[in-house]
Amino acid sequence: MALNVKDLLSSGAALTDQALERLLPGPDTLPHSIHRAMRHSTFAGGKRLRPILCIEAARMVAGTLPEGVADLGAALEMLHTYSLIHDDLPALDNDDLRRGQPTCHVAFGEATAILAGDALQTLAFQTIASLPAAPATVVAVLREVAIAVGTGVGRVGDLETSLAPGMIGGQVMDIEGEGVKPTAAMVEAIHRAKTGALITVSIVAGGLYGSAQPSEDTIARLRTFGEKAGLAFQIVDDVLDMTQDSAQLGKTAGKDTAADKATWPAVYGIERSIQDAEQLIADAFDALTPFGEAAAPLKALAQYLTARKN
Amino acid sequence: MALNVKDLLSSGAALTDQALERLLPGPDTLPHSIHRAMRHSTFAGGKRLRPILCIEAARMVAGTLPEGVADLGAALEMLHTYSLIHDDLPALDNDDLRRGQPTCHVAFGEATAILAGDALQTLAFQTIASLPAAPATVVAVLREVAIAVGTGVGRVGDLETSLAPGMIGGQVMDIEGEGVKPTAAMVEAIHRAKTGALITVSIVAGGLYGSAQPSEDTIARLRTFGEKAGLAFQIVDDVLDMTQDSAQLGKTAGKDTAADKATWPAVYGIERSIQDAEQLIADAFDALTPFGEAAAPLKALAQYLTARKN
Repeated sequence: MALNVKDLLSSGAALTDQALERLLPGPDTLPHSIHRAMRHSTFAGGKRLRPILCIEAARMVAGTLPEGVADLGAALEMLHTYSLIHDDLPALDNDDLRRGQPTCHVAFGEATAILAGDALQTLAFQTIASLPAAPATVVAVLREVAIAVGTGVGRVGDLETSLAPGMIGGQVMDIEGEGVKPTAAMVEAIHRAKTGALITVSIVAGGLYGSAQPSEDTIARLRTFGEKAGLAFQIVDDVLDMTQDSAQLGKTAGKDTAADKATWPAVYGIERSIQDAEQLIADAFDALTPFGEAAAPLKALAQYLTARKN
Repeated sequence: MALNVKDLLSSGAALTDQALERLLPGPDTLPHSIHRAMRHSTFAGGKRLRPILCIEAARMVAGTLPEGVADLGAALEMLHTYSLIHDDLPALDNDDLRRGQPTCHVAFGEATAILAGDALQTLAFQTIASLPAAPATVVAVLREVAIAVGTGVGRVGDLETSLAPGMIGGQVMDIEGEGVKPTAAMVEAIHRAKTGALITVSIVAGGLYGSAQPSEDTIARLRTFGEKAGLAFQIVDDVLDMTQDSAQLGKTAGKDTAADKATWPAVYGIERSIQDAEQLIADAFDALTPFGEAAAPLKALAQYLTARKN
């Protein structure tokens, strides 16, 4: 069948938005300020990339769209939004503009923004704990997600020997690395943690959710796909940040470079970065070979998102 | 049997501390700054009240100490600690001192403190998702806890008709209420949410964790005990804040009054507040009548904690 990636994107985003609309307390729910702040940032024009990847991973594994998968996607988007709200705070990146709109603390004040981020994290876990699936599946998904958005230690069963990358850990490394000349190892570690961990777990969680007894090989392949594709997306983001202006990006352009932040093109240059992103996508595709035609949507998404212009 | 409440407190605190020591990444785990910040605030001399209540509720219902209950208690303490770290931030209460020690942002900077709070919330949910219990029990506990530490809406099954109090919601109400002359209804709503919800869920979660098939009556009684005793603890806290100096309290005394914060003694006066706390404890005891002698530890704890001097 012919695959229209724009249809995949728009139908996945619509499913996610419906779930978010239902799951987030309404703007007139007391206390008002925090619910309005949570909605302000959640409905600020995000692409719903993580939910869409989750939904398509679940569809690939299950052969159909499992009941409640949009709620799982919505939970992942809440976690992404919470991380952006806190990352934009004056004490962190001090960003006034995000997706062309005032950031949460600019619109609602710093105290409310801190608490709105906190509440989005909580609501994400509440949402996962309320998914209509077998309790063992819910627990497995929740544990994977919690590890992925943490400081990056504590992969269950492997605590002593490996550090799983974690989203908060990536933010900390990013802060600790400011002003230091970025090395290749540092850039990769930050990317894998700060953005890669949540993208990867979106795909892994979709796979866990879509199958009653997921095989280790399936989960490992989804993890590899997520790690490779996630890194490619981030490299493309960094390249766009260096080559486009603020109006095209909807955020302050060149900010990462200005602050001497650790980015892929800062280490490798733009041309090599684009080549690396293409190689990572090829590797990501390889991981999905055993799924055959069922992998077409995930592959199409990965291809499209690394070829994007904003 | 004679019940020594100080033994209950010290053994419960020791169990909790051992679990926290094991569950929190070590101070030399990369990235250092956040793990040290998480430990700084977690091991700053807290009484471990919530874990101890959780442990004793589980023991009462199970007749023994269920495996892993100290980890559940540790997760509750992580949530309490995260809320304190964020509450102390300059944008919120702007407190420099907590339990006689510099607050997290004073010791580690604001960015790290924000992320350390975030990471403690995440680790709490990761810990609950890793408890050695039936998945259905884990999911039930996790959902209760998430609702209790959220904005206060979304009690599952009762969404349209009731607002369950939530910890973050209480913090928001507290901020929104500053400078407004406190009313009795406002004070009670804030107390039930800001501190009451987590205390109550500590007891309810202990009950859920301690029984394979908890009866609705058991959970309802534990909830009533928690709500009444939790409100009594908070009233005693407010009275101590007005009547003691900073050295006795280990934090800045009179701060709540100075900021015209909504507290029980500010509305009712000190004498009436003490009477109310005593009545609440009597009501809390009534809720546990069917448990007979097995309820003695929980009752002794409640009695002791409302009679405390700091």
